[in-house]
Amino acid sequence: MEFTRTAVDPGSNARTGVFTTAHGEVRTPIFMPVGTVGSVKGVYHRDLVEDVKAEIILGNTYHLYLRPGLETLRIAGGLHKFESWDRPILTDSGGFQVFSLTQIRKITEEGCRFQSHIDGSRHMFTPENNVDTQRIIGSDIIMALDECCPGDADERYAARSLKLTQGWLERFFKHFVETEPLYGYEQAMFPIIQGCVYPELRKRAVDHAVSLVGDSPAAGGFAIGGLAVGEPTEKMYEMLELVCPLLPQDKPRYLMGVGTPANILEGIARGVDMFDCVMPTRNGRNGMLFTWNGIMNMRNSKWSDDFSPLDPDGTSFVDWKYSRAYLHHLFIAKEMFAAMIASEHNLAFYLDLVRQSRLHIEAGDFAQWKETAVKRVSTRL
Amino acid sequence: MEFTRTAVDPGSNARTGVFTTAHGEVRTPIFMPVGTVGSVKGVYHRDLVEDVKAEIILGNTYHLYLRPGLETLRIAGGLHKFESWDRPILTDSGGFQVFSLTQIRKITEEGCRFQSHIDGSRHMFTPENNVDTQRIIGSDIIMALDECCPGDADERYAARSLKLTQGWLERFFKHFVETEPLYGYEQAMFPIIQGCVYPELRKRAVDHAVSLVGDSPAAGGFAIGGLAVGEPTEKMYEMLELVCPLLPQDKPRYLMGVGTPANILEGIARGVDMFDCVMPTRNGRNGMLFTWNGIMNMRNSKWSDDFSPLDPDGTSFVDWKYSRAYLHHLFIAKEMFAAMIASEHNLAFYLDLVRQSRLHIEAGDFAQWKETAVKRVSTRL
Repeated sequence: MEFTRTAVDPGSNARTGVFTTAHGEVRTPIFMPVGTVGSVKGVYHRDLVEDVKAEIILGNTYHLYLRPGLETLRIAGGLHKFESWDRPILTDSGGFQVFSLTQIRKITEEGCRFQSHIDGSRHMFTPENNVDTQRIIGSDIIMALDECCPGDADERYAARSLKLTQGWLERFFKHFVETEPLYGYEQAMFPIIQGCVYPELRKRAVDHAVSLVGDSPAAGGFAIGGLAVGEPTEKMYEMLELVCPLLPQDKPRYLMGVGTPANILEGIARGVDMFDCVMPTRNGRNGMLFTWNGIMNMRNSKWSDDFSPLDPDGTSFVDWKYSRAYLHHLFIAKEMFAAMIASEHNLAFYLDLVRQSRLHIEAGDFAQWKETAVKRVSTRL
Repeated sequence: MEFTRTAVDPGSNARTGVFTTAHGEVRTPIFMPVGTVGSVKGVYHRDLVEDVKAEIILGNTYHLYLRPGLETLRIAGGLHKFESWDRPILTDSGGFQVFSLTQIRKITEEGCRFQSHIDGSRHMFTPENNVDTQRIIGSDIIMALDECCPGDADERYAARSLKLTQGWLERFFKHFVETEPLYGYEQAMFPIIQGCVYPELRKRAVDHAVSLVGDSPAAGGFAIGGLAVGEPTEKMYEMLELVCPLLPQDKPRYLMGVGTPANILEGIARGVDMFDCVMPTRNGRNGMLFTWNGIMNMRNSKWSDDFSPLDPDGTSFVDWKYSRAYLHHLFIAKEMFAAMIASEHNLAFYLDLVRQSRLHIEAGDFAQWKETAVKRVSTRL
């Protein structure tokens, strides 16, 4: 996986770039819609391409491993073919889901044992079988197995957790370079930088990961995990300010699971290149619309007689097609069409957010523009 | 509303035709997707036009009256504008929903009082205010208010119910011709023929409706109600064989709420021109797919390793885009995308069903073709 920086913002650490995978190029900064179980909830793949203009989407190893399962994915020829998506896919290792979704689990140096949240069946992820699993899924970019430490963990817990993650990373990377992709195209891996909100731990995590994967072409970039998991937002920004400058300039940086439109703009300003979050779809399903002018709760009765277009500044086909009053009605009447329209709009907005950011970085005025934009997108309408 | 017959099948009572509304032409036989509360569940309007190729959709007066309510619809300028659909719309009067959805109701000669199934609020539909309501909705074709008699009612009950419906029809028609449309385009009304499974009552209903609306241009066609409501299927076909020949040849006949693909083909053979049913969307949401080769239950594990296209004979973009194994997975994983794909496919299939029927009527071989087609579409795969 090759990454080329194409512009840097003079007033911040923001940068634009492009990376190449077997399934096409991705321009950064980029937002990646989340297709957890093999579908971006409520959005056709056709519309992800043509309307949302997604360049890469996510899948989740934990969910896909349980359903449809590895045998199905292997016969299908990988996730791309299974879900009919011929652009890049990134998969999370599933570590986060083991910690957030399973009731019963046991984490040891060997790996993590867990019971499925669906049927209670018993499974184990080790760094080695997690590589194998993501080889079967066939994603273009795969994440190392890690323990995601809670945002309010004490430093002792966080240090122990980081040590475990580092041991897993060593085994994961070793197994990754010793194995081959299954479907004739290259995959790249990203180590995940943990360390909670503790600067020394974060530094240690970066040193370890960088010295381990070094300049290996196998490592496509670096992920920053364990943020937006309960810590104050300011702490998240502090960690980014610390971590990004320590990471190689010539590899993309992926801030996992983040976040609000403001979080994304602030992340870009601190040097982050890739983002994913369920917020546009999950909050969309609950009636929340993100726009350049702020956040709209479509369940609010104030929209019931507003017949103006959903979002006159929006780029999606739904933005001029449907009115606020109509979408409000659909949410109140509990029509599934409401979730579809809101998800479509929000994803298109998130992609517009990173597109506009790229344009401003290229124009050299990102830092100033971002100050105003953050305020606008955070307004409650 | 003008209707022109364009072909008749020599071997059956099937015929093709075309009727003209202010929002465009509709070719018959036609299937009308059901957009109860202002959305065809899970399907974009864009896809109804371009992929499903729907020529007319339904709305439901009961549901729209309760949500979003008449004030919203009036300010929007009617349902077409409210939901952004510029092709024809037909609305049911809501009588059927009052009987099927509300717990508490009282039917008198005056009209029907009922409590909303949503919040228990009290309302009354009279023939007169039901005309006014459908004027506000602004549908191209509006249905008379009727009492839908259960399919297993005894003849005495059915006769009393028919008498009530006839009285309501007289008042409905009178008020309809005395009032004007609100949005500058014509609306047409259809009387509804009731009479349960009793030939004498059905005849009496036809005589009354035909003599009442006569050759009035206000009456665009005739609906046949109270079928597929619990009576044996053979009884439904008998009633169609009785009623259709008694109805004017030069008006379209609409069989309400019917049905399976086989029901539709048999209805066409007996002279029916218009159909609506929630089956393609509702059963689709539950995993049932209708195809030319039969009915597939996508939850069945037999599809889990079938990577062939959803329906190689299907006309929708989903049919070749997604595999059976993928759709099976989406249903098992409870992804909302499953309901979207199944609804899209089923509606496109229902429209293909009537399109193929039209072609065979025009070719003059509908009767023979129908025999084989009914068996094929009824097979359980």
